[in-house]
Amino acid sequence: MREAPLPPGGTIGILGGGQLGRMLSTAASRLGLKTHIYSDENDAPAFDVAAKTTIGAYDDEAAIAGFARVVDIVTCEFENVPASTLEAAGRAAPVFPPPRAFAVAQDRLVEKEFISGLGIQVAPFAAVDDIASLKRAISLTKLPAILKTRRFGYDGKGQVLIREQSEAEASLQTIGDVPALLEGMVLFEREISVIVVRGKDGELRYYDAIENVHQGGILATSTVPASIPDDVAYAAREIAGRIANALSYVGVLCVEMFQCEGSSPNLVVNEMAPRVHNSGHWTLDACLVSQFENHIRAIAGWPLGETSRHSDAAMTNLIGDDVNSWPELAAAEGTGLHLYGKAEARPGRKMGHYTRIVPKR
Amino acid sequence: MREAPLPPGGTIGILGGGQLGRMLSTAASRLGLKTHIYSDENDAPAFDVAAKTTIGAYDDEAAIAGFARVVDIVTCEFENVPASTLEAAGRAAPVFPPPRAFAVAQDRLVEKEFISGLGIQVAPFAAVDDIASLKRAISLTKLPAILKTRRFGYDGKGQVLIREQSEAEASLQTIGDVPALLEGMVLFEREISVIVVRGKDGELRYYDAIENVHQGGILATSTVPASIPDDVAYAAREIAGRIANALSYVGVLCVEMFQCEGSSPNLVVNEMAPRVHNSGHWTLDACLVSQFENHIRAIAGWPLGETSRHSDAAMTNLIGDDVNSWPELAAAEGTGLHLYGKAEARPGRKMGHYTRIVPKR
Repeated sequence: MREAPLPPGGTIGILGGGQLGRMLSTAASRLGLKTHIYSDENDAPAFDVAAKTTIGAYDDEAAIAGFARVVDIVTCEFENVPASTLEAAGRAAPVFPPPRAFAVAQDRLVEKEFISGLGIQVAPFAAVDDIASLKRAISLTKLPAILKTRRFGYDGKGQVLIREQSEAEASLQTIGDVPALLEGMVLFEREISVIVVRGKDGELRYYDAIENVHQGGILATSTVPASIPDDVAYAAREIAGRIANALSYVGVLCVEMFQCEGSSPNLVVNEMAPRVHNSGHWTLDACLVSQFENHIRAIAGWPLGETSRHSDAAMTNLIGDDVNSWPELAAAEGTGLHLYGKAEARPGRKMGHYTRIVPKR
Repeated sequence: MREAPLPPGGTIGILGGGQLGRMLSTAASRLGLKTHIYSDENDAPAFDVAAKTTIGAYDDEAAIAGFARVVDIVTCEFENVPASTLEAAGRAAPVFPPPRAFAVAQDRLVEKEFISGLGIQVAPFAAVDDIASLKRAISLTKLPAILKTRRFGYDGKGQVLIREQSEAEASLQTIGDVPALLEGMVLFEREISVIVVRGKDGELRYYDAIENVHQGGILATSTVPASIPDDVAYAAREIAGRIANALSYVGVLCVEMFQCEGSSPNLVVNEMAPRVHNSGHWTLDACLVSQFENHIRAIAGWPLGETSRHSDAAMTNLIGDDVNSWPELAAAEGTGLHLYGKAEARPGRKMGHYTRIVPKR
């Protein structure tokens, strides 16, 4: 039996107050839904566009429970929400995406095991707890390889490249001697991602596959369409859908992949994000229904919206001081400018993005 | 010399908290600007997406002055703001659009005189203060004609049709014996509107001319492109631009016109609205930069944004109980749904709208 959707006037509680929460909140408002943002920052960007706000620590279970009691649904705009927090929220309100998706995405080792367990190709990997297991891992993955912390990594943080055996010991110290995994290098042609949205009834809808370029571990540009053949695009969708189904996922999920040389499609999954994703920001300007609105529709039990694109798009992030070029970007033709309302342009901080759209080829 | 634009992080104060304020507020957030909404309603729709809110009467000059002091710019989402309120705000912050535009738009007689004074065709009209002047007016306009209050009319309110001389006396009572004007009937082929945005530097940009259908005095649908020849579209733009220039206007202005039979273009201006307008809601879904964002850009002194459309569009208002069809509309293909977060679906109340978009012909 299908559950009734959350009607207009209902309130979505969002854990996290960054730019993703901000764009989720304005998307919810299109549908007549209110948002209540929970953040540990005093001046979270999402506070500017929310009906209600709560400032609190993410591990303050009493505060989280109080927050969950006054909203209709709880969702998250970042994946490193503590499991105990999701449980505390879940006792008072439905939580979407399902907490299991966070458990998987928060631990790179669990994530790799989960995805490869679905018969999906990932980079060679092995658990690393100490120098002995690191040496065994190196014999499996070969060098160069990347040592990554199991938890709390994003935008290239918590990673170190090992080129030679002699760097092994130091690399463990660099990441702080925490549980880790070693990943073999994947020689790829290009990085792509797929944004999929899955409804409560299991319906899957996909945005077109995206071609991504990272710089310094941070996403720089996302371009649609990706320059890949149709069979690769189809295979990429199928992988994202298989992961979403296996997690009984509800909401927007992003799966990042490498397209490798060799017999097509040869896709290797890099990682997944159980949330709206930076590589899907172009959907705001090139689709009738953005990834943000489709996430809200899914978790609220609404019919999913259109995912087709009306225009080709290229999104560029504004990192740190890049944002100072806003006057020129505001004047540029065919350019949608998005600024996140962050006061301080620290290096590496995502301050905004812009999307150039052109008619579909 | 060009004034510096209001940088990201600045605050736009909006007088009025309805759906127009709501959509202005989310548009401002795209540009990294905050909004502070002033409304006399406790649960104004725009409050859901504003950084700050103030509840107060529109004629409470002390409250308005206090509000204007804590924002960087004041704008309005409805035209019937008292002149004294705009003056009170203007002593503490710049007010855009310019108060003169409100003075003209608030009084149908002043508006008609102003527009016809620019050499632009309007319906035959005459001032009416009593039965004697009404009878003189009828001899000028002929019957049928429409008796309209000079002030506070919108969505067909404050109007009465006079078909015969014998109805004259009663019609004055119907509108409440207030200062009025009589307007001759215009036999028109279609109703169109032009949304123009004018920057602080005088730059003009136009959205494509819109074809509108009213039902019971309330806008029902807006379609783009309008089924008019290019020379009519060009003439319509030129009229809107001439009005904007004559008012030294800053922001989005809507000019409603009748396209009449006879030698082309034969456009008769019906009225103007010194604000974002219902007939421009399709720009949210069919343009990179919506009328809402362009209004914010203009009043903040930013470069104006793209006004071209990437798709053809047809917008339909959801009036009163129409909104109950939201589950079907949310599931409809190619349809952007917008709900305004109003709790009560009173008859005649604008509860939302939807836009169907298709590739440009």
